[in-house]
Amino acid sequence: MATSATPVAIIMGSRSDWPTMKLAADKLDQLGVAWTAKVVSAHRTPQRLVEFSTGAKAAGFKVIIAGAGGAAHLPGMAASMTELPVLGVPVQSKALKGMDSLLSIVQMPAGVPVATLAIGEAGAANAGILAAQILALSDEALAARLAAFRAALTDSVAETVED
Amino acid sequence: MATSATPVAIIMGSRSDWPTMKLAADKLDQLGVAWTAKVVSAHRTPQRLVEFSTGAKAAGFKVIIAGAGGAAHLPGMAASMTELPVLGVPVQSKALKGMDSLLSIVQMPAGVPVATLAIGEAGAANAGILAAQILALSDEALAARLAAFRAALTDSVAETVED
Amino acid sequence: MATSATPVAIIMGSRSDWPTMKLAADKLDQLGVAWTAKVVSAHRTPQRLVEFSTGAKAAGFKVIIAGAGGAAHLPGMAASMTELPVLGVPVQSKALKGMDSLLSIVQMPAGVPVATLAIGEAGAANAGILAAQILALSDEALAARLAAFRAALTDSVAETVED
Amino acid sequence: MATSATPVAIIMGSRSDWPTMKLAADKLDQLGVAWTAKVVSAHRTPQRLVEFSTGAKAAGFKVIIAGAGGAAHLPGMAASMTELPVLGVPVQSKALKGMDSLLSIVQMPAGVPVATLAIGEAGAANAGILAAQILALSDEALAARLAAFRAALTDSVAETVED
Amino acid sequence: MATSATPVAIIMGSRSDWPTMKLAADKLDQLGVAWTAKVVSAHRTPQRLVEFSTGAKAAGFKVIIAGAGGAAHLPGMAASMTELPVLGVPVQSKALKGMDSLLSIVQMPAGVPVATLAIGEAGAANAGILAAQILALSDEALAARLAAFRAALTDSVAETVED
Amino acid sequence: MATSATPVAIIMGSRSDWPTMKLAADKLDQLGVAWTAKVVSAHRTPQRLVEFSTGAKAAGFKVIIAGAGGAAHLPGMAASMTELPVLGVPVQSKALKGMDSLLSIVQMPAGVPVATLAIGEAGAANAGILAAQILALSDEALAARLAAFRAALTDSVAETVED
Amino acid sequence: MATSATPVAIIMGSRSDWPTMKLAADKLDQLGVAWTAKVVSAHRTPQRLVEFSTGAKAAGFKVIIAGAGGAAHLPGMAASMTELPVLGVPVQSKALKGMDSLLSIVQMPAGVPVATLAIGEAGAANAGILAAQILALSDEALAARLAAFRAALTDSVAETVED
Amino acid sequence: MATSATPVAIIMGSRSDWPTMKLAADKLDQLGVAWTAKVVSAHRTPQRLVEFSTGAKAAGFKVIIAGAGGAAHLPGMAASMTELPVLGVPVQSKALKGMDSLLSIVQMPAGVPVATLAIGEAGAANAGILAAQILALSDEALAARLAAFRAALTDSVAETVED
Repeated sequence: MATSATPVAIIMGSRSDWPTMKLAADKLDQLGVAWTAKVVSAHRTPQRLVEFSTGAKAAGFKVIIAGAGGAAHLPGMAASMTELPVLGVPVQSKALKGMDSLLSIVQMPAGVPVATLAIGEAGAANAGILAAQILALSDEALAARLAAFRAALTDSVAETVED
Repeated sequence: MATSATPVAIIMGSRSDWPTMKLAADKLDQLGVAWTAKVVSAHRTPQRLVEFSTGAKAAGFKVIIAGAGGAAHLPGMAASMTELPVLGVPVQSKALKGMDSLLSIVQMPAGVPVATLAIGEAGAANAGILAAQILALSDEALAARLAAFRAALTDSVAETVED
Repeated sequence: MATSATPVAIIMGSRSDWPTMKLAADKLDQLGVAWTAKVVSAHRTPQRLVEFSTGAKAAGFKVIIAGAGGAAHLPGMAASMTELPVLGVPVQSKALKGMDSLLSIVQMPAGVPVATLAIGEAGAANAGILAAQILALSDEALAARLAAFRAALTDSVAETVED
Repeated sequence: MATSATPVAIIMGSRSDWPTMKLAADKLDQLGVAWTAKVVSAHRTPQRLVEFSTGAKAAGFKVIIAGAGGAAHLPGMAASMTELPVLGVPVQSKALKGMDSLLSIVQMPAGVPVATLAIGEAGAANAGILAAQILALSDEALAARLAAFRAALTDSVAETVED
Repeated sequence: MATSATPVAIIMGSRSDWPTMKLAADKLDQLGVAWTAKVVSAHRTPQRLVEFSTGAKAAGFKVIIAGAGGAAHLPGMAASMTELPVLGVPVQSKALKGMDSLLSIVQMPAGVPVATLAIGEAGAANAGILAAQILALSDEALAARLAAFRAALTDSVAETVED
Repeated sequence: MATSATPVAIIMGSRSDWPTMKLAADKLDQLGVAWTAKVVSAHRTPQRLVEFSTGAKAAGFKVIIAGAGGAAHLPGMAASMTELPVLGVPVQSKALKGMDSLLSIVQMPAGVPVATLAIGEAGAANAGILAAQILALSDEALAARLAAFRAALTDSVAETVED
Repeated sequence: MATSATPVAIIMGSRSDWPTMKLAADKLDQLGVAWTAKVVSAHRTPQRLVEFSTGAKAAGFKVIIAGAGGAAHLPGMAASMTELPVLGVPVQSKALKGMDSLLSIVQMPAGVPVATLAIGEAGAANAGILAAQILALSDEALAARLAAFRAALTDSVAETVED
Repeated sequence: MATSATPVAIIMGSRSDWPTMKLAADKLDQLGVAWTAKVVSAHRTPQRLVEFSTGAKAAGFKVIIAGAGGAAHLPGMAASMTELPVLGVPVQSKALKGMDSLLSIVQMPAGVPVATLAIGEAGAANAGILAAQILALSDEALAARLAAFRAALTDSVAETVED
């Protein structure tokens, strides 16, 4: 895991979210963007959430990726305490398959946005890419790496359906 | 509106929730339980939420009724910062009719319960009654008033379908 | 299993609900609250339901935890026949994954509240904790144990995502 | 309203359900089947529900039509206390448009069936027709009226889309 | 399998529905009601559906149990071509878990009722019981067996949660 | 209304579906394709459905547009009795807003396809266009009119958001 | 796999959709209709999508079958760039079981239809059959094969539920 | 409306989306960020979509806000053709209230993220704020205005529920 003072922070409600959220980290690694990951539970460690969120900008973070499942309050609460962009990943839940996670994250009231991605692993991977897209607006080297990543994505799609 | 040091606090995410949450206050009035209502937005006033929740028990509150709509984080976040019972009321939202509010409130992870009521006005009224039921466990006079209320509820149900 | 005259009764619609509802009992054990569990089927033993519910207060119970799945009528029907607080746990159903259980329990009409928790095991565990929170309002020793439980919950959340 | 000792009983959770349930009565009138309607609230008058349900067969009823909305427990609870066929009508609810009513009524566990009809007025009308279909199995005159009703239904469908 | 001229017909859209629909047959066996089962696909054998439905009453059937999954048209189409009561069983579908089956069966327009049961096996079992309840209205011996069945159902519910 | 021997038949379950289905006719008019509309209720006039569907090809129809709401069986049942392409339009229902109509139409089992369009007016309009697209495969003049229609559609989209 | 200049093109968003989409190809093979399959990702190869869609008619294709899952844009976007009929297959997605795929494909705005089939394998098989139904309108030999296919479908439905 | 070369582009599928999307523009105005709005329909003007999306970065845009309803393909398709961050706003649809719009936008596959906001006006307003948050990462004056905006948001929340 990368250390602090990285541009991207990846926070999640529980260590059990890491297998999902790791895909965000993987994409950031692929794009050469440093990250820090930590467990910040909105419900079990609310004080840690307050400290992290209110201090995230001063700590040098630029973008926060927050993943949580069920009644997923972490992304929205983090967003309420920072002016940094917060990207929310709805982790797939057991009974309702992430529909609860999705609605808990995306349906924020006017004033406090959370940039919500797809449920589960695709959403986590895309949070990593989106963070890079945001950072690339003021980082030409990253923009170049991102362009290469996108080109490779296109090239990877073979036209044939079978080998 | 009643003043502080009341047994019940009614908090809500926005003043626009008051027409719904007022039904909780009405039931408490009917049952002779004092209450305090205030707007505490999880997203727009997170600091006020922290202060209210962490201080609620010391302030003398016994039960917290929290109403919110959409990505409704207020009840769960309050519950994460107090040991008092928190009763959650999903306020009916515009697009998804309160299904988002309901799932955001009820699907709390193990460790931090929110006692969730029905969507909208029925849920708010029931939050008032439930708060009284909880307080009545150690207040015999209230228990008697509650018994009378329930008896009146039964008596109010005329058997005929038309006048 | 604890014997009667306990502060908490755990009732459930079917013995097959016990693997879920056991998590309520576990939390009560952890918090030092005695409980009694029994199968009371709203549909197969309606007379037992009536007897239990109308007699629960006189029998010395303070809080009822009721779990059921599908068209889950047990929590609401119990609530209609007692003034004690009833906590409802939607047991996960096979086809609809507990969405039917949840709506059958939470959408009670004004007058008869059921304090509804999350679908499945998290909800059952939280019902145990919520029962303890309610009882702790008039039991300082329990309040202290609850505070310790919450502190331990916070401490258990390691910040790192991997060992 | 017809008087007791009728073959069909129409019960409903609240007088406010009558505008919907009246359509069952209308169809029964049209088919020459006598009915009795009364408000029996599962939640507000549980004792009345027990008395009605356990005594329905002895009172001479043959079929029970039960309508309710939200966490709709009336049809299933009546079915648990009588061997008569119970037809359930999910009354359209405010927030969730009757999806909660439908799931609360139809998802009964094995052992206690409720014959569930469509949400709202169409379901109520069909409950009246279904009751007549059941009674017609041992009433040839009714069977003839039902056949005429069905033929008229077919004849009423003009082929042209506009006058 | 019982032969024709039985009081109950069990029809289903596909042989793959039999493991579910068999539970209706099992309950009928238990209650001493003869049945006939056959595959009648609304979509693949529409002519067989027409012949069966229009001829069911003359063939001596009293009640039709119809099970189907997905866009489940069999129960409603059978109901449109007979005056016999039709009981519909929504078979659990793969992608949508029977929600499509349920809505396709229960949401019939006014004029043509289908008595809908729960999704899957519980619904099939209950269709068998409901058919017996309907037939018992004019068969006292069956009524007695049904009463015994219900009593046994109640007796089977042990109060203890563990052995 | 156009007369028979037209390439397109528009059928619907009830005259009340005409305000929706009329949009299919409007698009066909716009594209110069003749149509015939009639009410064919799967549930109230099943015999008319059988006659229409089995005879549609011999009658000279090429494409059938079928609209229905709720437990919408008309499109699928028509498709089961003809080899002509059947286009299904889910008419918006009252309680469930057309979700029941959509699932009843689209979730057809393998073997009997229904080409399903969007819920309500957009779906009806698109059924008209799709019918024309199908007919245009062997009608060059229609193909030319369709190309002009599509070009006009594009041209109609002004880039500015306000006048 | 068949080569180009075939009447049917089968396109899909990802090679992982092939196990589903193969069922369309199988039905086309069974009906003697040649097809070409290729991966055309709306999101990863948008340029390939534009080229394919705008050139499909000139390339000699008559019908396009497009399958995709999740936020499934491929069928609708192809339809926006061709006047050929586009048949959309919602591939079953992981978290939401294809409900997202279905709504993304079927809810097209007026002007650009997609003929949507069922979620998953049944939908893919039916897309193949529907394509043949469309082509059969101007191909009598195919029409005859289709009639034989439908007759065999009917014959394959044994009436007995067990061997 | 602002002219081109602005940092933010607001695109929408139809002029009828403007009353919703205007709230994004309002927030940008409030925060002093210039914007350009135009109608770019994925389905009716696919060529305009390709030109806009592939040229957006070169044209000087930094962030794209895209709103659409129903089968909402605009945000995802724009995202597939640019490396700029795309913020998606699900416009509330008629039948399904925006649930179709939401799922069509948020459930993007890995590789092509869309930062999705809430359904309807709140989502549009938040898209404006999120765009400003992203731009503020490299614009200190904007960051200061944003901080003031957030402080004012907090101050605007009066604690009292009534005047």
